[in-house]
Amino acid sequence: MKQFEPRVSKIISKDNKLYRDCIKLSQKKYRDSFGAMLVEGENLVSEAVALGKAVLILYDEKVSLPEEYRDVPSVAVKSSLFTRLTDTKNDQGIVCVVERPKKEKTRFFRVAGAAGTNILILDRLQDPGNAGTLVRTAEAAGYAGIITVKGSADLFSPKVVRAAAGSILRVPVYEAEDASEVAEMAAVMRKRLVATVPAGGVMMDEADLESDICLIVGNEGNGISEELLELADEAVMIPMMGEVESLNAAVAAAVIMYRSIGSRK
Amino acid sequence: MKQFEPRVSKIISKDNKLYRDCIKLSQKKYRDSFGAMLVEGENLVSEAVALGKAVLILYDEKVSLPEEYRDVPSVAVKSSLFTRLTDTKNDQGIVCVVERPKKEKTRFFRVAGAAGTNILILDRLQDPGNAGTLVRTAEAAGYAGIITVKGSADLFSPKVVRAAAGSILRVPVYEAEDASEVAEMAAVMRKRLVATVPAGGVMMDEADLESDICLIVGNEGNGISEELLELADEAVMIPMMGEVESLNAAVAAAVIMYRSIGSRK
Repeated sequence: MKQFEPRVSKIISKDNKLYRDCIKLSQKKYRDSFGAMLVEGENLVSEAVALGKAVLILYDEKVSLPEEYRDVPSVAVKSSLFTRLTDTKNDQGIVCVVERPKKEKTRFFRVAGAAGTNILILDRLQDPGNAGTLVRTAEAAGYAGIITVKGSADLFSPKVVRAAAGSILRVPVYEAEDASEVAEMAAVMRKRLVATVPAGGVMMDEADLESDICLIVGNEGNGISEELLELADEAVMIPMMGEVESLNAAVAAAVIMYRSIGSRK
Repeated sequence: MKQFEPRVSKIISKDNKLYRDCIKLSQKKYRDSFGAMLVEGENLVSEAVALGKAVLILYDEKVSLPEEYRDVPSVAVKSSLFTRLTDTKNDQGIVCVVERPKKEKTRFFRVAGAAGTNILILDRLQDPGNAGTLVRTAEAAGYAGIITVKGSADLFSPKVVRAAAGSILRVPVYEAEDASEVAEMAAVMRKRLVATVPAGGVMMDEADLESDICLIVGNEGNGISEELLELADEAVMIPMMGEVESLNAAVAAAVIMYRSIGSRK
């Protein structure tokens, strides 16, 4: 991970090197190359500090930094410059740099892949709100980790991080290159690959969703790729009454993830 | 409902009265006073025509109107003017005026309130995407109607209509003034008022959610109003693992609505 060291007590120039590096974290390529991401707002900063993941706090010169953060390096930022560090209109005047989880497959297997766990797979899911909501829902439903297929919304982008609330700091995540890497990972973890489909699968209550599954949710418009569908062990559907053709991707995945909890009773 | 009659075959002036009236439908006050709303895109227009609800079709002069629509009054619109009729960046060049369902309580009771049905209540739910997603999910989960409490996103606004897909044309909807009107309506329909809460309720699997409930989902930030909470017969929670404090409002309601289907098996 790149170093984020405050060399001044207050950033007053837009040309400050540290400030420019932090701004760059709004782009995926820099999050990837710096190995870092930004989280914003009191709740997320507090969570990052509690988890020991806060590397550097940046705060609007107009707010006073809470005592509890004094062990973390911090730097004040001139108000007119601070707004560019946040993605929200009414920011809370505080953001922090957090280490972006490394892309380590063996670590993912260790922390998320044990026998009995379930994993969520996002196959080119685009909408950052949907993606963030699903990170949060996956944690709540007891899913142990998330694998995204390249082309999905980046889970470390500001919009996803916000929709995920603190969950992005806690749920293990891995970005796979393609469908075949996902299938390989499922095989290594000895989990069944279960595709969610609008038609042509078995009804969710007929499927065993309790444990050891990798549940795939697809792209909002196009669903799951043909390649990944062919690699799946099983396809499940949610019953739909009326004339509804499909459910929102986040809703569909949530309904099925919570189905596993029911069957666990 | 206001008359929407094409007096010309093509609208070429931004001062055309019909054009101006249609533009006004992007605002709730005009949707209410005109008794009409706009739906956009091929799928929704086709659905509105099939349901006999299309009053007037407006199409971009650059697209050709499908044969199947020739029984509905229609008017071409100069391309530079058409864009203001839609809410999307890449519109499909077609919108139509549809009668906005009247606010008739007795009709709502008749079409949605029969013994055995479930109703969804949106208590000042703000986000149009969440609201639209819930209209669609409610239909899919077999809910018979939706009551919104004043202060919720207007279900007939362009963003909600889009997120709801065709469901907004099919699911009966009623806008209640306040919490006490909601409670009265539940009493008339002899349904139990069930609040979804993040804490302090019974676990969803302990509750009877099968039939004859009015399921309340609250505001994204503040949940259900105290007044409505006090009027509720019962409060239910979704089990949440990890450190998650709350679920997205649309996800929470979807999980519980689909729970009723499971218990029906």
